[in-house]
Amino acid sequence: MHFSKHDIEQMPSRYRAHFINSLSGYKSANLVGTADHQGRYNLAIVSSVVHLGAQPPLVGMIMRPDVVERHTLANIRETGWYTLNQVHQSFWQQAHQTSAKYPAGESEFSATGLTAEFIGDCPAPSVAESQLCYSVKLLSEQPIEYNGTIMLIGEIEQVVLKQPALFEDGHIDLNSLQTVAVAGLDGYHVGHALGRLHYAQPDSEPTVLEAKCKGD
Amino acid sequence: MHFSKHDIEQMPSRYRAHFINSLSGYKSANLVGTADHQGRYNLAIVSSVVHLGAQPPLVGMIMRPDVVERHTLANIRETGWYTLNQVHQSFWQQAHQTSAKYPAGESEFSATGLTAEFIGDCPAPSVAESQLCYSVKLLSEQPIEYNGTIMLIGEIEQVVLKQPALFEDGHIDLNSLQTVAVAGLDGYHVGHALGRLHYAQPDSEPTVLEAKCKGD
Repeated sequence: MHFSKHDIEQMPSRYRAHFINSLSGYKSANLVGTADHQGRYNLAIVSSVVHLGAQPPLVGMIMRPDVVERHTLANIRETGWYTLNQVHQSFWQQAHQTSAKYPAGESEFSATGLTAEFIGDCPAPSVAESQLCYSVKLLSEQPIEYNGTIMLIGEIEQVVLKQPALFEDGHIDLNSLQTVAVAGLDGYHVGHALGRLHYAQPDSEPTVLEAKCKGD
Repeated sequence: MHFSKHDIEQMPSRYRAHFINSLSGYKSANLVGTADHQGRYNLAIVSSVVHLGAQPPLVGMIMRPDVVERHTLANIRETGWYTLNQVHQSFWQQAHQTSAKYPAGESEFSATGLTAEFIGDCPAPSVAESQLCYSVKLLSEQPIEYNGTIMLIGEIEQVVLKQPALFEDGHIDLNSLQTVAVAGLDGYHVGHALGRLHYAQPDSEPTVLEAKCKGD
């Protein structure tokens, strides 16, 4: 099946949103925790977190200022902090439910039954049920031309890993954490491991990397 | 386990790369196809493709100008075009192998045994083995402050879907395509579906969405 630019333009708006959101492939599922200056908490699911670099440890996140995420964005601007919390199989439906438009003043934590906890001095709440979460300090926001979205650039501050999923080389086993991936707008998945591969060399075939979890 | 900012700074460089790359969650696995003006083809695996918006259909991609991806970036600047090709289970090891530093003049297509084909007028090659691929026209590049990376913003031009994986609402079933997701630097996975959920409403519980493939 071929879809031309014209075909895509002619798709109904919601159909096109499903279609185009499927093209990039599997996306990460994360909950963004924020607070305002009054200590009111907000929690929103995002599929737009992207690794930017390890040194310094930076993470990017695309936000749409005009939709439900606007409270998240306002809170991040107010305090300069947020948390990112990987979504796991045990609470994927609650995570999705945070995207409902709750009335002002109702926190997505209480509405969905997720639990707020804190990482170090970060004023933004993290999700107690998340097995891998971290605090992030806002460094800057860059407007994306053409569609009014914004990329937030944040520095990773403090990381909390609640299960023995750390390999001896620094890799974290998302499979054993039952971390969730999103396809399109609303399709949730867990991973099934094919394997890890050694750093590729031009003069040799791909070879499987066997690494151990710390403590194994 | 808690990791402070200081702990992260003290990690050896490669260990930190594995660790920080694992934090964002599952990432999409895509091959970027490009050509230079002499018609020499380049193919590179990337895990940094991010959905930017459906109207207009935009896709973002983070590039590191100082590593192997530099040929890809040079080609995109030269022609203004690239293709994005989802990686599937049948060729995940070949896809990884494109990250090897092949000598100048050796195409990753012939080196890894993947096949070049073309989408419409796009001069950049796509991957015949990919079941979901599309041509992209470069709109702009935005430098990311702080670490010298660049975000390429591209407009999706023409989409090719080679299997009956399109749902009646526009969603594409990445499971049936055996699309691959990446964890960290080198961990490859296929998805196992938990389900799709209806658009969340504040006054109702999450409910599973049953959609059919076109033609079912």
